[in-house]
Amino acid sequence: MSFVSVNIESATDSPVKLTRRALAKQRTRERVLAAARRLFSERGYEGATIRDIAQAAGMSTGAVFASFADKSELFEEILTADYEVIYAQMTQAARNAKTVDEALMGLFGVAYGFHVEQLPLLRASIAVSWTRSEAAERRARTDLKHIFRLIGEALQRGVDEGQLKKDIDAKLLAEITWDVYVANYRRAVYDGWSVEALLARLSEQLKVIFAGARA
Amino acid sequence: MSFVSVNIESATDSPVKLTRRALAKQRTRERVLAAARRLFSERGYEGATIRDIAQAAGMSTGAVFASFADKSELFEEILTADYEVIYAQMTQAARNAKTVDEALMGLFGVAYGFHVEQLPLLRASIAVSWTRSEAAERRARTDLKHIFRLIGEALQRGVDEGQLKKDIDAKLLAEITWDVYVANYRRAVYDGWSVEALLARLSEQLKVIFAGARA
Repeated sequence: MSFVSVNIESATDSPVKLTRRALAKQRTRERVLAAARRLFSERGYEGATIRDIAQAAGMSTGAVFASFADKSELFEEILTADYEVIYAQMTQAARNAKTVDEALMGLFGVAYGFHVEQLPLLRASIAVSWTRSEAAERRARTDLKHIFRLIGEALQRGVDEGQLKKDIDAKLLAEITWDVYVANYRRAVYDGWSVEALLARLSEQLKVIFAGARA
Repeated sequence: MSFVSVNIESATDSPVKLTRRALAKQRTRERVLAAARRLFSERGYEGATIRDIAQAAGMSTGAVFASFADKSELFEEILTADYEVIYAQMTQAARNAKTVDEALMGLFGVAYGFHVEQLPLLRASIAVSWTRSEAAERRARTDLKHIFRLIGEALQRGVDEGQLKKDIDAKLLAEITWDVYVANYRRAVYDGWSVEALLARLSEQLKVIFAGARA
């Protein structure tokens, strides 16, 4: 058998097999992710074991481990999928805004709207963010960079359009805003605050944080 | 037997028994707390079970449960004991300060100094703060009220001494400061920041947060 005929066999045969296998694998992953999302929401990160998740997905723990290295990889995958949805909407909100305040309220409003609907998962994700490995923290920060770039762009537009001073420390302002944005979820978790209440508080906080930055 | 003689019996007999029992109980509690502190630091809150803690303390789980209702009560007791130490030192630092900035840097410096020395316990306590029961959150907020009162006193002195404007929203300023103070621990946990580095960052953050509040 020549080298070429091997290649032809691959071209006519293997791709179909691969596609079927890939599709089956994809379906397994989706079943695991759906079951995991439900269990993490119901029981928190620590409360849901791989065994529980496998059982809920109707498969063996071995089948779960064929798709995911461990529980933390599974959890990260859920958060990343959510992150991609939120990020697209945040970008839209920030770019449609007319002022820097509108942009910040718009993009954080998207995030509050999304997470308040699934608070148990949010609680688990903030808790995990304090106990995860350094490698997992690095990956999370890479995701966050995109959001900080969005905030940075909104602040730069604020400078360009004369709403903010030219010499602001945009990075520090963005980080302080992020810190209070995250901390506010405590009010949603333990005090039942609505998205509107969270945004009203954030608006007051932005007034303080940006008081020295207004042009 | 007269009423008086019963009382005399109690006075000569029971108190001694009670004291011995109370002392033994106290020693048991201390042994459990010491073992729990070590295990929570080594394994995090979820990673340390009551069974592990009992074993490390050299007693039965029943003996642990005779002193503490559950793991969360045990964990809270450790944090409260630490809190009392920190609070006394924070009060000292704030009251010795000459300006509002010195007071804030002093009191948060005490906290950074304390917690950076036992980061694993701090990580566990921040993680737990997002997943605990509403009742536990209420108790934690009652403790925090004392610290917010300290910050409030520092800000009021700043107003009285003409460093801050009269119409500042002291509560909002204190809460924003608290949020960034807590968020900064992420740098200690994942980036190995020292107390000095944390304080340098807090100082930059305070400049931004208080920019609109300076008299």
